[in-house]
Amino acid sequence: MYFEDFSKYICAYSDFEDADFAIFGIPYDATTSYKPGTRFGPDEIRKASWGLETYSPVLKKDLTDIALCDLYNIIIEGAQDEIIRRSYRASKNIMKKGKVPIMMGGEHSITYPVVKAVKDTYEDFILIQFDAHCDLRDEYLGNKYSHASVIRRCFDLTNNIYQFGIRSGDKEEWEFGMENTKISTDLPKKDDIKEIKSLDKPVYITIDIDVLDPAYAPGTGTPEPCGFSTKELITSLYLFEELKDNIVGFDVVEVSPHYDINDITSIAAAKIIRELMLTIS
Amino acid sequence: MYFEDFSKYICAYSDFEDADFAIFGIPYDATTSYKPGTRFGPDEIRKASWGLETYSPVLKKDLTDIALCDLYNIIIEGAQDEIIRRSYRASKNIMKKGKVPIMMGGEHSITYPVVKAVKDTYEDFILIQFDAHCDLRDEYLGNKYSHASVIRRCFDLTNNIYQFGIRSGDKEEWEFGMENTKISTDLPKKDDIKEIKSLDKPVYITIDIDVLDPAYAPGTGTPEPCGFSTKELITSLYLFEELKDNIVGFDVVEVSPHYDINDITSIAAAKIIRELMLTIS
Amino acid sequence: MYFEDFSKYICAYSDFEDADFAIFGIPYDATTSYKPGTRFGPDEIRKASWGLETYSPVLKKDLTDIALCDLYNIIIEGAQDEIIRRSYRASKNIMKKGKVPIMMGGEHSITYPVVKAVKDTYEDFILIQFDAHCDLRDEYLGNKYSHASVIRRCFDLTNNIYQFGIRSGDKEEWEFGMENTKISTDLPKKDDIKEIKSLDKPVYITIDIDVLDPAYAPGTGTPEPCGFSTKELITSLYLFEELKDNIVGFDVVEVSPHYDINDITSIAAAKIIRELMLTIS
Amino acid sequence: MYFEDFSKYICAYSDFEDADFAIFGIPYDATTSYKPGTRFGPDEIRKASWGLETYSPVLKKDLTDIALCDLYNIIIEGAQDEIIRRSYRASKNIMKKGKVPIMMGGEHSITYPVVKAVKDTYEDFILIQFDAHCDLRDEYLGNKYSHASVIRRCFDLTNNIYQFGIRSGDKEEWEFGMENTKISTDLPKKDDIKEIKSLDKPVYITIDIDVLDPAYAPGTGTPEPCGFSTKELITSLYLFEELKDNIVGFDVVEVSPHYDINDITSIAAAKIIRELMLTIS
Amino acid sequence: MYFEDFSKYICAYSDFEDADFAIFGIPYDATTSYKPGTRFGPDEIRKASWGLETYSPVLKKDLTDIALCDLYNIIIEGAQDEIIRRSYRASKNIMKKGKVPIMMGGEHSITYPVVKAVKDTYEDFILIQFDAHCDLRDEYLGNKYSHASVIRRCFDLTNNIYQFGIRSGDKEEWEFGMENTKISTDLPKKDDIKEIKSLDKPVYITIDIDVLDPAYAPGTGTPEPCGFSTKELITSLYLFEELKDNIVGFDVVEVSPHYDINDITSIAAAKIIRELMLTIS
Amino acid sequence: MYFEDFSKYICAYSDFEDADFAIFGIPYDATTSYKPGTRFGPDEIRKASWGLETYSPVLKKDLTDIALCDLYNIIIEGAQDEIIRRSYRASKNIMKKGKVPIMMGGEHSITYPVVKAVKDTYEDFILIQFDAHCDLRDEYLGNKYSHASVIRRCFDLTNNIYQFGIRSGDKEEWEFGMENTKISTDLPKKDDIKEIKSLDKPVYITIDIDVLDPAYAPGTGTPEPCGFSTKELITSLYLFEELKDNIVGFDVVEVSPHYDINDITSIAAAKIIRELMLTIS
Repeated sequence: MYFEDFSKYICAYSDFEDADFAIFGIPYDATTSYKPGTRFGPDEIRKASWGLETYSPVLKKDLTDIALCDLYNIIIEGAQDEIIRRSYRASKNIMKKGKVPIMMGGEHSITYPVVKAVKDTYEDFILIQFDAHCDLRDEYLGNKYSHASVIRRCFDLTNNIYQFGIRSGDKEEWEFGMENTKISTDLPKKDDIKEIKSLDKPVYITIDIDVLDPAYAPGTGTPEPCGFSTKELITSLYLFEELKDNIVGFDVVEVSPHYDINDITSIAAAKIIRELMLTIS
Repeated sequence: MYFEDFSKYICAYSDFEDADFAIFGIPYDATTSYKPGTRFGPDEIRKASWGLETYSPVLKKDLTDIALCDLYNIIIEGAQDEIIRRSYRASKNIMKKGKVPIMMGGEHSITYPVVKAVKDTYEDFILIQFDAHCDLRDEYLGNKYSHASVIRRCFDLTNNIYQFGIRSGDKEEWEFGMENTKISTDLPKKDDIKEIKSLDKPVYITIDIDVLDPAYAPGTGTPEPCGFSTKELITSLYLFEELKDNIVGFDVVEVSPHYDINDITSIAAAKIIRELMLTIS
Repeated sequence: MYFEDFSKYICAYSDFEDADFAIFGIPYDATTSYKPGTRFGPDEIRKASWGLETYSPVLKKDLTDIALCDLYNIIIEGAQDEIIRRSYRASKNIMKKGKVPIMMGGEHSITYPVVKAVKDTYEDFILIQFDAHCDLRDEYLGNKYSHASVIRRCFDLTNNIYQFGIRSGDKEEWEFGMENTKISTDLPKKDDIKEIKSLDKPVYITIDIDVLDPAYAPGTGTPEPCGFSTKELITSLYLFEELKDNIVGFDVVEVSPHYDINDITSIAAAKIIRELMLTIS
Repeated sequence: MYFEDFSKYICAYSDFEDADFAIFGIPYDATTSYKPGTRFGPDEIRKASWGLETYSPVLKKDLTDIALCDLYNIIIEGAQDEIIRRSYRASKNIMKKGKVPIMMGGEHSITYPVVKAVKDTYEDFILIQFDAHCDLRDEYLGNKYSHASVIRRCFDLTNNIYQFGIRSGDKEEWEFGMENTKISTDLPKKDDIKEIKSLDKPVYITIDIDVLDPAYAPGTGTPEPCGFSTKELITSLYLFEELKDNIVGFDVVEVSPHYDINDITSIAAAKIIRELMLTIS
Repeated sequence: MYFEDFSKYICAYSDFEDADFAIFGIPYDATTSYKPGTRFGPDEIRKASWGLETYSPVLKKDLTDIALCDLYNIIIEGAQDEIIRRSYRASKNIMKKGKVPIMMGGEHSITYPVVKAVKDTYEDFILIQFDAHCDLRDEYLGNKYSHASVIRRCFDLTNNIYQFGIRSGDKEEWEFGMENTKISTDLPKKDDIKEIKSLDKPVYITIDIDVLDPAYAPGTGTPEPCGFSTKELITSLYLFEELKDNIVGFDVVEVSPHYDINDITSIAAAKIIRELMLTIS
Repeated sequence: MYFEDFSKYICAYSDFEDADFAIFGIPYDATTSYKPGTRFGPDEIRKASWGLETYSPVLKKDLTDIALCDLYNIIIEGAQDEIIRRSYRASKNIMKKGKVPIMMGGEHSITYPVVKAVKDTYEDFILIQFDAHCDLRDEYLGNKYSHASVIRRCFDLTNNIYQFGIRSGDKEEWEFGMENTKISTDLPKKDDIKEIKSLDKPVYITIDIDVLDPAYAPGTGTPEPCGFSTKELITSLYLFEELKDNIVGFDVVEVSPHYDINDITSIAAAKIIRELMLTIS
């Protein structure tokens, strides 16, 4: 009556039971090798979402017409494997109930438990990655589940991987990618979507915010020059409307608010989430 | 089971009905003449509270033993008088139910509706102010309810006003204060508390964070040099244990997070709230 | 002889009487719903102008050949309606004397009094808006003269409104715009200019700096992703040479220096002003 | 009528001819060895002064009762010796007309031309320095007129030098100071003032803002831990009332705004100037 | 001949073999629960040391008279236990050769391997801690070797622990401390030193920079209000001259440069190291 | 064995004698007229290089296959002419030994001594400049060797100058450029490279980071809107493969880290260096 609560993602007014989409955060960044801080990403993306409108003039759709719940953040306690296990179970629970999980990172390593839940829910599936980095190292600084190995670990779960926007990696990663994934330095084009569509499988999308150029997303742990603008990325996401019956979940990771200016990275992430959610709804 | 929610003040686990203390924010700063931004104060104080422990080693008391609820923030919509009215009603509602309101600002002007609710609940009362500035202008830039006039407006409600830590104001304000309030450039001493105790009336405390020196609280709208350290302020607050049966509410205002460094001002505010709450519990 | 004064916009060496262009600021931001701070815009744009040259290599024109005066800022005292009135009178005074006002904001709401002065000076006129947001709400948070309603208020004065670069608004605003204004998600093209030229009326241009992408203008209150580069904007402004006899004034608003990095938003604003002033001179 | 100008130090409403005090800046920092940026000091101190009141509750005096003019900044053009010459002439011109110069730096090296003007105006004089550093090197990085040599250069002009608050310097500087100046790690006490008074000579005061602890003045080029609070410094300045007939000028230097947080260093400098000006008026 | 190298701590010109003191960093922060970033501490403390003089006017000693080497940073690769092992071996190697290790953190957890090396080199020893927090949890978020458990782990190695400046901890930690360590909310006094001296054992000192108040050391992970000034801390360190034959090593940890303003925390750490090194040399 | 050293540019593992490329910094910025701070550029570019991979997926080359040494920074002591002399000698020494110097600034003026060393080593040569500004003033603020005159001074050494990306300068500079250099507002195209190739002379390249748009390189002294993206710049640099036998050295200057956000300017500079080094290797 007198009070209002802005602590959730904008328009996340549904209960879990009634929701079609369930947004949550995994504020974990302990394997980060360079600049940690993505643990603060989920809460800042939520806050930034309130600076946007609920309506997309491009899609002519409105978040007010969508059943979205916000579950807050995964409990960060215990060693990495325990957090992975908790994230996996939460994700699987969401999907088992027929809802679409929307995960906000945190570092990229935490995409793994969500993708494993996709695997265990849908068996055969396609992984689509937007990223500046290959993330194909078999291990990094001695950790097989680090942010720099996450797509390699996902490759253990599916060999249907599409990598877009990639512009950094060591020689071995690139050779591995060339051989084993569909790796591209560019964003997806209509033909790519058609090809993916033809496979007719569940699709999970993981978006590392550093696929954007550092000018558009300075607030991230390992900014890599020569990336894309937010408009280029979102325009390419609109193509996924064709895949809307296939997409079973997505995430946006690696937003690091303390390295940002005026929250422009969090706002970009919040808009990416809004537009992709509206695209597939 | 998998998720956790850090969006409230630490340990604010009670429902409103069960609570003895009800914390809430008034994120309003539209009359601010210099640097606006205190509207972001309440949420940052909440966030900062999670970096503290729940236990006070000085008081040997623990927040876990207190029934505290967090009502989130007053709805900020409409003109200033409408927000004043809403804040007044919310505050009165809390006090009518016998609970102690703890208000987080926001600019200092929003202390007025809470104090008016004190007046209308308890009739005769004492106002204790910690501040760098007199805030005794009859009007400021044409507004009788501006942050610079708030104590003058409170003087319309009670002439029992104690002003501590004051070190800035124009000539007229100082003359008004000398004549009409107990104005001091220093923090309260034992004798002050004894004097207040002897009046035996309900007491409301308003703490403008700029009573602290800018070194200790840079994140505020009009930092004024030559203030106090956080330790000096909190030590003086411990004296209020003597008044714990009299205190019917308090606020901490003028925290402006975007002008802060590493949230030290928000953390100071969160600790002031914890220690004062434990002192009077 | 020994001293120099950099407190005005670069090259603003004329007296008011001799000037063809009169630049001034309206440092007002009290209706801002999200991040206030545009009140600091005018002074930072002035300061930033000194990092530019006076010469435009594209236009091959020099500010030294222009008679420009800088009147400093509108007095900010009193309630919003009083500030609106003062801004209106100052603007009308400038135009009555046959000079071109160049206004620096401040939040977008303060475009209204300037446009009203255009109305009362020239009667029939065209309004051209560059913005990320429609600003077509009939009222916002209970205020009919808020920044989010400014173009709607201007619509009360003229129904010749061209909106360029718009990419955010609620559903009702978009529907209103579709029906009542020329609303475009793109920047103006030659054909747009030709169409406007054919109407043969006085033209006022208002530029909300957030028409730029947040990468190019992070220092603003509500940054909206997917905008334009400074080069794209300025290139489109060069097209207005064709309208130079029609343009009776312009403004650049919503620069919020405390949210900026290395003043790049203020510098962009200062260059937009220089290039548009040289274009129409 | 409609406009206001905040580009000067608060209350500097007098013309040069009528003024008793003439404030001006020397925005020069090219010999700075560590972190440059004090060239932005004078303008930020001016801006910060508007966040203060004109009235000092301690001194019970008001700036409105003082005839102060602000001459803006010395022209920074040409090599160091040319800027020194220009600063010298401007300072001498002020003093020859019987006015008190108040100089805002800029790096400490620019105290030299002002002190030389004191010498050439008053011949015999006393120099009082507040600083964290000795500044007694005979030369620094090959420059005899660097910020680290300024007091040594002043020693060429007078051997009546009092150094207060000093806590850093190399071994040679300390030995030189021990032998040739009154060097103290502490702030002045009543006895120091009495001793200075007894010499009955013109007095010039130079205050390097880094005499304050970095907590109180982070915005400076070479912050040195273990300094004083602003209150301690200003309290010691009040003692100079006794010397008010002797003081012929003063400066505050080494404020570096881009390294500051929420302008607290500029505000401290602005208050130091206000209080010292009121003390000696 | 033409080039200079500032990448080491100032005056660290000795080879390892010739050195009496060996400074090194452990840039590890992966167990940090709140704000990570202390991994950047060691390099920033080194950089900050170049803004100091080599001479201490209080101690009248000069770093140029000390044989100091800088070994750069421990290799951060592998899981936490591997980094612990590597840090342990490096520390032991330094002590076995009769040198005094000076470790720069990094989060507080990395004090453990150094203290274990003290244990294995000297057997019986005293640990002296300066800190805002008890760090006495038996485990934290499931980790027995976290930053919040480090002193508890050290207690497994010695029951001669002195804790100074402590002002935060949960109830269990305080009870544990009361029973098992010498825990004090204050800094050490002469009597404390005398008592420690009387035990006549090797002494290791660990200084968590957050023992300072956040005003003096904002750049740290969990700033806790009501702490000490840098001058108070360093003054208490001078007392350790009495123990100079006992001290076998020390560390300064928890400096987090990305949360700092103008490096004042790194500079404080660099000065603490200089003064303590000179005190015991 | 236990320690690692990240203080050099990534992969700079060679000794000077064995190196083909010698990287070094000139941390000088004392003639800077606007915002100083490029003296911190070289060390931040080094640090930023460690966030990149050593492998270029575009060029399919790896830094690990290149013999690179890092000589640290030129000694900054003495007046400007002394520093110029030292930089000149160091550069010439590198080239005389048949190595390619890679210089990191520092302000643009320090390109002059390197170019003079090119002149004295190779006699006839071509200078290629990437910049937002002409830098063709005959003198600036009374200094013939200022950053704003550097290309004019180079013109004294060669009249084969190509200027790319230029978008700012005063009228005289543009006229001088039109007459005497190949000045272009655009980046080089294939035809430009062909033309340069046809001259068959040694080539030196100087890259002022402000050729990039401020969105991509905010961390610089005089950001000029309407520039290029990092991808556009680097793509144009790939064209220089054709000239790889001609290129005898290059520099990247004007990176000013304290005005940057999350080091994105330093990272861009580090990548420009990596890609250009790999292009010509």
